[in-house]
Amino acid sequence: MSFPMRNIMFAFASLAAVALAAPQALAAAPEEAAAKALLKSPKFAKATASLAGDYDRIVKDIITLTEIAAPPFREEARAKAYMAMLKAEGLDDVEMDGVGNVMGLRHGTGGAKGEATPLIVITAHLDTVFPEGTNVKVRRDGDTLYAPGIGDDTCSLPVLLAFIRAMKAGGFNTKADILFMGNVGEEGPGDLRGVRYLFSQGKYKDRITHFISFEPGQSERITNAGTGSRRYKVTFNGPGGHSMGDFGLVNPAYAMANAMVAFSKMQVPSDPKTVYNVGIVEGGTSVNSIPFATAMTIDMRSNGKAELDAEEKTFLAILPEAVAAENAARSTAKGKISYEAKLVGDRPGGTTPMEARIVKVADAVAKANGYAPKYSAGSTDSNIPMSKGISALTLGSGFETFRNHSLDEGLKLDKAVNLRHFNNELATVLVLAEAK
Amino acid sequence: MSFPMRNIMFAFASLAAVALAAPQALAAAPEEAAAKALLKSPKFAKATASLAGDYDRIVKDIITLTEIAAPPFREEARAKAYMAMLKAEGLDDVEMDGVGNVMGLRHGTGGAKGEATPLIVITAHLDTVFPEGTNVKVRRDGDTLYAPGIGDDTCSLPVLLAFIRAMKAGGFNTKADILFMGNVGEEGPGDLRGVRYLFSQGKYKDRITHFISFEPGQSERITNAGTGSRRYKVTFNGPGGHSMGDFGLVNPAYAMANAMVAFSKMQVPSDPKTVYNVGIVEGGTSVNSIPFATAMTIDMRSNGKAELDAEEKTFLAILPEAVAAENAARSTAKGKISYEAKLVGDRPGGTTPMEARIVKVADAVAKANGYAPKYSAGSTDSNIPMSKGISALTLGSGFETFRNHSLDEGLKLDKAVNLRHFNNELATVLVLAEAK
Repeated sequence: MSFPMRNIMFAFASLAAVALAAPQALAAAPEEAAAKALLKSPKFAKATASLAGDYDRIVKDIITLTEIAAPPFREEARAKAYMAMLKAEGLDDVEMDGVGNVMGLRHGTGGAKGEATPLIVITAHLDTVFPEGTNVKVRRDGDTLYAPGIGDDTCSLPVLLAFIRAMKAGGFNTKADILFMGNVGEEGPGDLRGVRYLFSQGKYKDRITHFISFEPGQSERITNAGTGSRRYKVTFNGPGGHSMGDFGLVNPAYAMANAMVAFSKMQVPSDPKTVYNVGIVEGGTSVNSIPFATAMTIDMRSNGKAELDAEEKTFLAILPEAVAAENAARSTAKGKISYEAKLVGDRPGGTTPMEARIVKVADAVAKANGYAPKYSAGSTDSNIPMSKGISALTLGSGFETFRNHSLDEGLKLDKAVNLRHFNNELATVLVLAEAK
Repeated sequence: MSFPMRNIMFAFASLAAVALAAPQALAAAPEEAAAKALLKSPKFAKATASLAGDYDRIVKDIITLTEIAAPPFREEARAKAYMAMLKAEGLDDVEMDGVGNVMGLRHGTGGAKGEATPLIVITAHLDTVFPEGTNVKVRRDGDTLYAPGIGDDTCSLPVLLAFIRAMKAGGFNTKADILFMGNVGEEGPGDLRGVRYLFSQGKYKDRITHFISFEPGQSERITNAGTGSRRYKVTFNGPGGHSMGDFGLVNPAYAMANAMVAFSKMQVPSDPKTVYNVGIVEGGTSVNSIPFATAMTIDMRSNGKAELDAEEKTFLAILPEAVAAENAARSTAKGKISYEAKLVGDRPGGTTPMEARIVKVADAVAKANGYAPKYSAGSTDSNIPMSKGISALTLGSGFETFRNHSLDEGLKLDKAVNLRHFNNELATVLVLAEAK
């Protein structure tokens, strides 16, 4: 496509964050006490000092990683660089798994005798939306860094490394094992394949008790609901022909237009939020040929599973009608219009309930840090564990980013604000892992 | 676009040949006598012997030229090769003009004292529809040659060279000057720029009295009417956005769909034949983004000028309505849908009347050769002179071709049939040029 990308700002690029109804108040709980105790501990003071001293290094690592392109399905170079960074932090069992995720383990002390050791995954995604050949050189203008992918999600990767150093600086032992990871396949076409693999074929798949993915944004933004989505590429095929000599034959572009018009009139509920979109249209070879094929790629999402199913059913019913209308409107003497609807994305939805310990911890830590937690639903790597009933959240890694997914993507550095967020995130991880 | 090209056969690839009402019978005339005299002359026997002896060379030259790719706007390599061939035939004033046409003059003896010497242009187009990088290697299977562009219009170019040799072999002098040419820009995006230039800026522009372009097909197929066409690329622009976060905003794909549906219902007359087509659709950057822009490229043609004007008017009225409907259907809080309709092709129509000498000559020669002339309208280089009232025809150069404009394009060799057509074409040129 030859259309320029324009400016647009997403609070969370790939999250499509949507405010949920205000969660019920959480009772004062052990999590609140644990959060307060941690925050005032001398160990945590050492950890925060480590983060503060690390700030320039985090920025440097962001630039280094941003400048290693990581298009969908081509994350390997960046993955290897990040794996080397994980190794340099002294993690155990540093490796790349079968799908390209890289990870290393920080062993915990384990639970009581006979109790399984919890395993917390802390991850950020390696892939960006940008195709191969995109100029990923970082440009700095004052406190602002510009480069495709720098916000979503490259900036989160070095923060995780800083957590490892801060935990070491603080002398923390955790009960839980913590698996630090950079995962592949979060963005569009990747269809969450990195985290899918982690939970279906990865060697830790049966051990993971908690999962936190970090995405650009504020740390008090707590995504505890995963919006389910189904994406289709629908191809309309026909006999084609010459615009003059074959005038009157069926044209797949008209069948597709019928479908788009019907789709555009589809009624969907606002609660749970349910949406649809025609994202890409393509087809035809020349102005004076009736196309042999045209195609549209569409997105349907809902925070409700039944609503997504209903939406998909309606959509799939539109297609044969649209095609039949075109076959009735023009000649099928040289062939009819047919269509193929290919499922190109299927992200399961799910929710980590407000009463789950992971939510209580994130909420308590944020409040103890003076933040007002904001709950949202999104479409992120957390969708996979959420769909399996495993406690999962997506949190902001602390940077304000803008124009994510555009060539003007950027990140604003604000050391004081960023550090406050880092501290908040680290405290969440530490309380969750029962650090001492 | 990534859609496979499929098989399709056009009798005349770029002509979109359409049978016209049977022309009125032509009175027995000087042209008939001249045709008969020429055909039985010893000079013409020598000329036909030359063509027969040249057959293998014509085939060899077709292969040579086909394998020099000539995409739209990238005809230069093939043009230079053809220019060298024109020069080798001993033509005068061999040159490439300002737009890339190549040509050489065969001087005639001129008219009576004080009478301007007629100038006949004999041309075939150099360009093919295929983009750079298309494999143009010719594959031979028995009597069939396969390669993109071999039919339309590469096969015609060497036939013109054979005419020059045959005229020399026959010892013909012509009254008219004959300009042999390979022209650029006949196919779609070229928008007839080669022949436009010839008649607007070329050095012979005020001298040309007759014009014959050769295209694949039978020599008794006489295109004496030029179908007018107007082509638009319509771009629909909008604010774009995230498919989830910005759901409810206007989407240019829906505005375009509205326009396509209305366009598909447009009523057009069948006489004069009037047609329209959506040829290319494109737009959008990712499945989960509301597109900033989508576009459709459309073709409108008519054998009648008033009908083409009316068709264009209706089409242009559809666009604002389609856009307004989308702006009314969804939120314009972040911007409205707008559109831009860019005229990307404008081929004037015209007719060379049945009573024009060039038609009478072609008709008389074909009949004298035992052919039943078939008159048609098309969209070819002849549109330009026709629109200016200059006598012009497009004739088939004598090869049966198939699947023109497809990657399976091919040409069937049938020496006896082909030679009969070459003789017919050469006789037409000779009678028109008043050869002696």
